Amino acid sequence: MRWWGWGDPRRGPELSASALQLMREHVGIATRPRPPVALSAVRLAPSRLREQTADALRGIVGVEGVRADSRERILHAAGKGYADLVRMRAGAPQAAPDAVVLPASHAHVRAVLELCAESSLALIPFGGGTSVVGGVEPLRGPHQAAIALDMRRLAEITELDRESRIVTVGAGMRAAALERQLARAGLTLGHWPQSFQYVSLGGCVATRSAGQASSGYGGIAKMVLGLRLAAPAGDIELPAMPASAAGPGLRELLIGSEGALGVIDQVSLRLRAAPGERIFEGSLFETFASGLAALRTLAQEHALPEVVRLSDVRETWLSLKLAGSAGLKARLGRAYVGLRGYGETAAGRCLAIFGCEGSGEELHARRRRARAIARAHGALALGRSPGEAWRRGRFEGPYLRDELLTLGVIVETLETATRWANVEHLHSAALAAIERALVAQGTPGIVMCHVSHVYETGASLYFTYIARQREGAEIAQWQAVKQAASDAIIAGGGTITHHHAVGRDHAPWLDRELGREGLAALAALKAQLDPAGIMNPGKLLAED
Amino acid sequence: MRWWGWGDPRRGPELSASALQLMREHVGIATRPRPPVALSAVRLAPSRLREQTADALRGIVGVEGVRADSRERILHAAGKGYADLVRMRAGAPQAAPDAVVLPASHAHVRAVLELCAESSLALIPFGGGTSVVGGVEPLRGPHQAAIALDMRRLAEITELDRESRIVTVGAGMRAAALERQLARAGLTLGHWPQSFQYVSLGGCVATRSAGQASSGYGGIAKMVLGLRLAAPAGDIELPAMPASAAGPGLRELLIGSEGALGVIDQVSLRLRAAPGERIFEGSLFETFASGLAALRTLAQEHALPEVVRLSDVRETWLSLKLAGSAGLKARLGRAYVGLRGYGETAAGRCLAIFGCEGSGEELHARRRRARAIARAHGALALGRSPGEAWRRGRFEGPYLRDELLTLGVIVETLETATRWANVEHLHSAALAAIERALVAQGTPGIVMCHVSHVYETGASLYFTYIARQREGAEIAQWQAVKQAASDAIIAGGGTITHHHAVGRDHAPWLDRELGREGLAALAALKAQLDPAGIMNPGKLLAED
Repeated sequence: MRWWGWGDPRRGPELSASALQLMREHVGIATRPRPPVALSAVRLAPSRLREQTADALRGIVGVEGVRADSRERILHAAGKGYADLVRMRAGAPQAAPDAVVLPASHAHVRAVLELCAESSLALIPFGGGTSVVGGVEPLRGPHQAAIALDMRRLAEITELDRESRIVTVGAGMRAAALERQLARAGLTLGHWPQSFQYVSLGGCVATRSAGQASSGYGGIAKMVLGLRLAAPAGDIELPAMPASAAGPGLRELLIGSEGALGVIDQVSLRLRAAPGERIFEGSLFETFASGLAALRTLAQEHALPEVVRLSDVRETWLSLKLAGSAGLKARLGRAYVGLRGYGETAAGRCLAIFGCEGSGEELHARRRRARAIARAHGALALGRSPGEAWRRGRFEGPYLRDELLTLGVIVETLETATRWANVEHLHSAALAAIERALVAQGTPGIVMCHVSHVYETGASLYFTYIARQREGAEIAQWQAVKQAASDAIIAGGGTITHHHAVGRDHAPWLDRELGREGLAALAALKAQLDPAGIMNPGKLLAED
Repeated sequence: MRWWGWGDPRRGPELSASALQLMREHVGIATRPRPPVALSAVRLAPSRLREQTADALRGIVGVEGVRADSRERILHAAGKGYADLVRMRAGAPQAAPDAVVLPASHAHVRAVLELCAESSLALIPFGGGTSVVGGVEPLRGPHQAAIALDMRRLAEITELDRESRIVTVGAGMRAAALERQLARAGLTLGHWPQSFQYVSLGGCVATRSAGQASSGYGGIAKMVLGLRLAAPAGDIELPAMPASAAGPGLRELLIGSEGALGVIDQVSLRLRAAPGERIFEGSLFETFASGLAALRTLAQEHALPEVVRLSDVRETWLSLKLAGSAGLKARLGRAYVGLRGYGETAAGRCLAIFGCEGSGEELHARRRRARAIARAHGALALGRSPGEAWRRGRFEGPYLRDELLTLGVIVETLETATRWANVEHLHSAALAAIERALVAQGTPGIVMCHVSHVYETGASLYFTYIARQREGAEIAQWQAVKQAASDAIIAGGGTITHHHAVGRDHAPWLDRELGREGLAALAALKAQLDPAGIMNPGKLLAED
């Protein structure tokens, strides 16, 4: 993973000429490229870890399990949120962990927890490091130093129960690695967040993640049957149960605990048979409202494809623009002939992607049923090309974001969910708030949205905005938009986050969602499990 | 509701001659009938409620909202568990509430909570009063007196959002009343516990209940989108959201809180379209194992009927016996001809009931698919008669239990769930433990089991035992079996309860399921929300 951005360091630039042109026309780019600084130019405070403490840590996890070199500290200095990237590219992380510790067993985790509590060391659990809400910022809080607990050595399958379709894995296992191993057994977890290639399963559980196929497989919360939380006060180990009425839902309470209650170091997850086939298709709806109505019907009649995605007018426009003229033809597939002259005006329609996964006649019956419902809501079927194009590019977004940052362009996303009766209202309200905030910053841009997680009772809304960066005031610009959008979301009846989690960025709004008593209950729980307050300070339950 | 037993006081006895004969042959009945005592013979300690406190309560909820007459106190003295019935029928409740208070608004609930905290009054939330685990026992704990908070006046639909399919109701609303109102709007909740006719929705949520159609609709936990908990420390009001990643799952934490954290006084629930048709059918499997394999395949291939039920050999035998010879023919339906000579030997098979709910071709396609899967596992289709017979009688069990008690026969149930790979083992282990315990009590009887809640990863097991009561030692006899069965369930890898909740009866086993730290976390939460410990003392988190 690149220290200053996303993904594979060997990948070259990929921004198409048409995308660059579009940015010039509609957003504006920097007069000179703004590449990241060299690794050697990153400003890093000396490690505050005392040599004696480092020795004690090495005594627990071995010499190879304690890293305090600059490169490792920089790699664990931030997640992949916009503010993280701005700071890292400038060589100015807010902070870096004073050491990176890599436990290789539950016993290691426990011993590290105890040492940290005794030595007043903040502990920041670190999986794939892909948080976009400041979830892995190495904040010390009131403590002497901060340790990033990198879970990558706890990445084994400890049990695969094929009959019950349950896998138990170390929390550091990557989602991509697990899917590769499961594929050999004809199984799948079915959790495909955009961070899929890097994210750890512990991180997914700790952040209550939802993947692109959540309409079929559910979010991670639906997949967790059991887990182990190593908290400073002790372990909570909940066995893998299909269901239970044994009191309040402790499992669900630890899901989404974001490292603030302890370290999730093992999870048991529900599996499914790997689909024999995946068919991704595109459709065009006349309006966002008719697309929403189709999605609602699909959900309420239990006819949802595994992957469902509906872009609003603006996102559809951008998506087709970016595809280029040849690409446009390809994305629209067979329907292209019927859409000759499709351009700015026809872009008033809304692109949907439906992905059905399964095998045999059952798959095709479901696919036909979903298509019939879409058609009944006026959808024009575009065939497979747009679906496959989306599927090929679905993990590319973060790479493009890095390239656009070099051009001085901010690409930021934020998300929520609400009940069906409120989706259109919230869509408009949040869009308007983001647009107003961008204009107020003097950087009007492109603001757009899609629905990508659909439920019987409501749906998610995922907003993307693209604007020119305010050079020298990048963070302030971003914060102003975040504030405006988050206020609008809460006021508009949405949740502050559907699947990005709370971290540092959403913590200021949590009291408006859970209420004072809700937060007090979580604080009491934290005081019980983490009495010294060493776990991931400043996230989830921010002190203020 | 009868004060000494189940249901409608106008119902007469219904035990068939064949059932009576079967009890005589296989269980043994009392030499003389043992009817409940008269209401006037119930021994009741005088109310400890001070007149001043009663006045204050009347000042809050009105004169009609405070009841301290014997009848109301007796009606709120116990739930409907075996020990409850034994004590009530003998006219010797363990305790009775010192008053019954009926709030008619959230403001009433808050004011009562504050008064109870100030006056050291234990508060026991009371919905339908159908707990079978001691969940509504009016224990005072260390407090001066105990109040039953009867929620029946908080029973309005406050919002029906048809588009989002969400209903918000006062927690005292009965499940049956809600279904009647929803039916007029073409909607259903789909929650059908055996206590359906009496149970309140707040009670269902507080006890993490699961209904007979849980394979299609999910348990109540899947239906709760939002709720309000009025805790002594304040309210937690969680808005109805389709999904959220805003931190730990507070919703799930309050589901199953069993009145020990506060009073759930409003819930928002997911609805579905009322099915146009309900088709209940019977099948016979060669063995319990082949039936389980069919259920597992149905679940893992997402082909589950809404209602799924598989009896083991013993329960199938009893079920067919009780149907009588004419009834047998009816229950076996068209298959009867092929089964001539069906008797003790053919009873080695296992009866399954599948109930499909829905409309049109979609329903019939699902039904055909489920039947094909059952057939592939060797099932013999019995047609609709056995299914309809089960459906007609599905709320009758508790009435029969009362009649058998009059004959000196204990009928008790207990339940668990586990992963598929462990279902057969747990079935055998728990059956053996119950049988051994009954023999040790000198009262061998009939022990049997069915599966009625099926998941991709596992299933519930619901055990029933029928034995002669040990006269004069009824509670000790029951406790010995409970102890043996619960120990076997926990040791065998099951949850201590799949849907009966913890209450008083399962509290001693909770630490073995959630661990010391898990319990400590819940205790910390209780200390935060209910600092004076007035909420439902002795349940869920028992002091010892």
